[in-house]
Amino acid sequence: METEIYFKFILSFGLILLVARLGGAIAERFLKQPAVIGELLAGIIISPFLLGQFLFANDPVIMNFALIDGVFSQNGEHLSGFAPMEIISQIAVVVLLFVAGLETNVTSFIKNSFTGAMVAIGGVVVPFALGVFSAMYFFPDLHMAGWLFIGAILTATSIGITVRILMDMGKLSSREGTIILVAAVVDDIIGLVILSVVISMAQSGSVNALSAVTTGVIGFAVWLGILLLGVYGHKYISKYILTPFKSSGTMPVMALIVGLIVSYLVTLVDLHPVVGAYVAGLMFASTMEKEEILHQTRPIMLFIAPFFFAYLGMQVDLREVWAVIVPALVIVVLAIVGKIVGCYFPARFVGKTSHNGAMIVGVGMVPRGEVGLIVAGAGLIAGAITRDLFGIAVAVSILTTLVMPVMIKPFFKPKAEANAKRLP
Amino acid sequence: METEIYFKFILSFGLILLVARLGGAIAERFLKQPAVIGELLAGIIISPFLLGQFLFANDPVIMNFALIDGVFSQNGEHLSGFAPMEIISQIAVVVLLFVAGLETNVTSFIKNSFTGAMVAIGGVVVPFALGVFSAMYFFPDLHMAGWLFIGAILTATSIGITVRILMDMGKLSSREGTIILVAAVVDDIIGLVILSVVISMAQSGSVNALSAVTTGVIGFAVWLGILLLGVYGHKYISKYILTPFKSSGTMPVMALIVGLIVSYLVTLVDLHPVVGAYVAGLMFASTMEKEEILHQTRPIMLFIAPFFFAYLGMQVDLREVWAVIVPALVIVVLAIVGKIVGCYFPARFVGKTSHNGAMIVGVGMVPRGEVGLIVAGAGLIAGAITRDLFGIAVAVSILTTLVMPVMIKPFFKPKAEANAKRLP
Repeated sequence: METEIYFKFILSFGLILLVARLGGAIAERFLKQPAVIGELLAGIIISPFLLGQFLFANDPVIMNFALIDGVFSQNGEHLSGFAPMEIISQIAVVVLLFVAGLETNVTSFIKNSFTGAMVAIGGVVVPFALGVFSAMYFFPDLHMAGWLFIGAILTATSIGITVRILMDMGKLSSREGTIILVAAVVDDIIGLVILSVVISMAQSGSVNALSAVTTGVIGFAVWLGILLLGVYGHKYISKYILTPFKSSGTMPVMALIVGLIVSYLVTLVDLHPVVGAYVAGLMFASTMEKEEILHQTRPIMLFIAPFFFAYLGMQVDLREVWAVIVPALVIVVLAIVGKIVGCYFPARFVGKTSHNGAMIVGVGMVPRGEVGLIVAGAGLIAGAITRDLFGIAVAVSILTTLVMPVMIKPFFKPKAEANAKRLP
Repeated sequence: METEIYFKFILSFGLILLVARLGGAIAERFLKQPAVIGELLAGIIISPFLLGQFLFANDPVIMNFALIDGVFSQNGEHLSGFAPMEIISQIAVVVLLFVAGLETNVTSFIKNSFTGAMVAIGGVVVPFALGVFSAMYFFPDLHMAGWLFIGAILTATSIGITVRILMDMGKLSSREGTIILVAAVVDDIIGLVILSVVISMAQSGSVNALSAVTTGVIGFAVWLGILLLGVYGHKYISKYILTPFKSSGTMPVMALIVGLIVSYLVTLVDLHPVVGAYVAGLMFASTMEKEEILHQTRPIMLFIAPFFFAYLGMQVDLREVWAVIVPALVIVVLAIVGKIVGCYFPARFVGKTSHNGAMIVGVGMVPRGEVGLIVAGAGLIAGAITRDLFGIAVAVSILTTLVMPVMIKPFFKPKAEANAKRLP
């Protein structure tokens, strides 16, 4: 039967979700960590590079083995076709960011936008400089574009992972959480500019800074436009997009569909879909229907979001990291320290947060997650970095992500204790 | 950017859902029909065979054009690869049937199982005979296997479409709804036996009835086993599968994951995944946690189920129907009459329903939906039917589906009026 392949994809989808849930539960219960850490680790363990190759050696469809495309292909070879599970993974992270946008307090988001932007800039400049200099030290034979690419990888912040960890910890709508969200969005836009600069440099040897900045400005303008559409036009959104679907109970579905379409539309100005999904969520967060939409879309997010993280883990080939372990560890440390230092000072002195608050913002910006891998993948395709440098990007992405929840906890706790003491 | 293709799939997913929702809303508000009819029609309209070819002529990814595989490929040519959107479509219908199983009253399901089984048998025998004889009349040059295939196509009942229409009408848990559900499940198992008989006949010219019946018995035994696991083992299911995930709020997600995996497992004994999803839903419907699971999985179903129906519509090539319009219309009428007659008498005299009740059961079993297409596709691959006979299958599938909600309404109404009269 021709349809059998689709049945196997149902299994593949179910198994990845199952493994993610079990990993998440173990992380929560036994490691006292956010579920997302368990989902990522579970993904790494069942990946085709570890257990997957033994469990499903004879079955390329299950676990998506041999269907993983592009930058994540094995042994440096790009496999043809594309990974169908990647589609579901993309939808999953879009749904996550849409719900995160919905849960955001828009007023507080706007109030913290200047601080957030400064945090983003600090969090770009310091890691970029550290990345470039350390790359020059470890890989003196590389050309300029290669060094800059390592810098670019270190500037990234994964809005998806940051949002999910803050959600798991119940801190998404804290002031620090809001600053992190603003900064993560701005980081994505600055990252876009840096990426186009270094790609054009790798390909043509020259830098078209004007065109890169134009790209960034257009991206930012579109993003801001959608946000303001929500802030000033929420009555019209309610009236024309939401109200017609209220009586049939499909109003929340309609909002999420708009979120999916906006996620795509922002990619036309080179923004990442998650940034579009987040601003679409913000747009609906300004409407009166916010709570009802949230109530019906949250279960969808809870179901599908873990897929993204487990699938992300499945793409990590630890052997690539092992091959470059010494420079990788040094660069990982610089990636962590650079981000914290770069974000701490703007948060503390522009945002006037407490010491703990500024540390939360700094540590919260640390995870590079999939964004680091995407930048590295682009560098690989542009010919700016080699396969072993890609191993460093994998190390940076995964270790900065795993370390964040462990590092951030102590800075939340004292405050909670202080509150507890104040209560009676 | 290599990732662009994935962005387009996000758009494709969003657009299909949008068109489905708009179609559904129009059907509900202006045609006073269940939303699913609008979703199907919207799918037909935007399919690559109608509007799709103009709207997205230059973009094969959007709308999945040129990625539609197998039996649904264009101009009789099988395209290589497979349709990634089909994966999402399969997941969508699995989620739908899981929720339908959850919503079923298990006690009532078991109480009506004998009636339902008799209805299924009647609904198989009469359309099969009518199908074979009409095929002999219209296509005298065809061989025996071809005639039998037309009969097999007419025996199908789409549990997915039937469930969805009953849901849209709020009649899923009525007694008639329960009889239809039992009958649809039994129909799927009988259909499995018939399909293996006619395929083996088309391929080898001889019939291995014993092996076909064995397949059916094994399928039924597995299905019944899962049902009884829920009925007698629900305490253990609660204790070992559900309770560990209660505190983290992921218990409903866990149930749905089990549903996905069971959907795959039943395909190992040749059952269709939707039948597995339904019985997995029934299994959890026996637990104390039923309502909580339903509360969190229903929004997921509401979001994704319309995708299945719109995508089903997108696979319909009306030109194929037009080419064989005269025999197609006659066979469609026979398909409708045969199913109603075959189901009416068992419902009326075994199940002792009212005249209206028996008509509801009969009409409720009419939609062939995707099952008719799957059987026809198998016949095409086995070489038993030709491309023009496939056009007849398309006509049967789509027209029996569209006609059902219109035909069933009058039989619900008088009862409602009678109730209304009785109330004061």
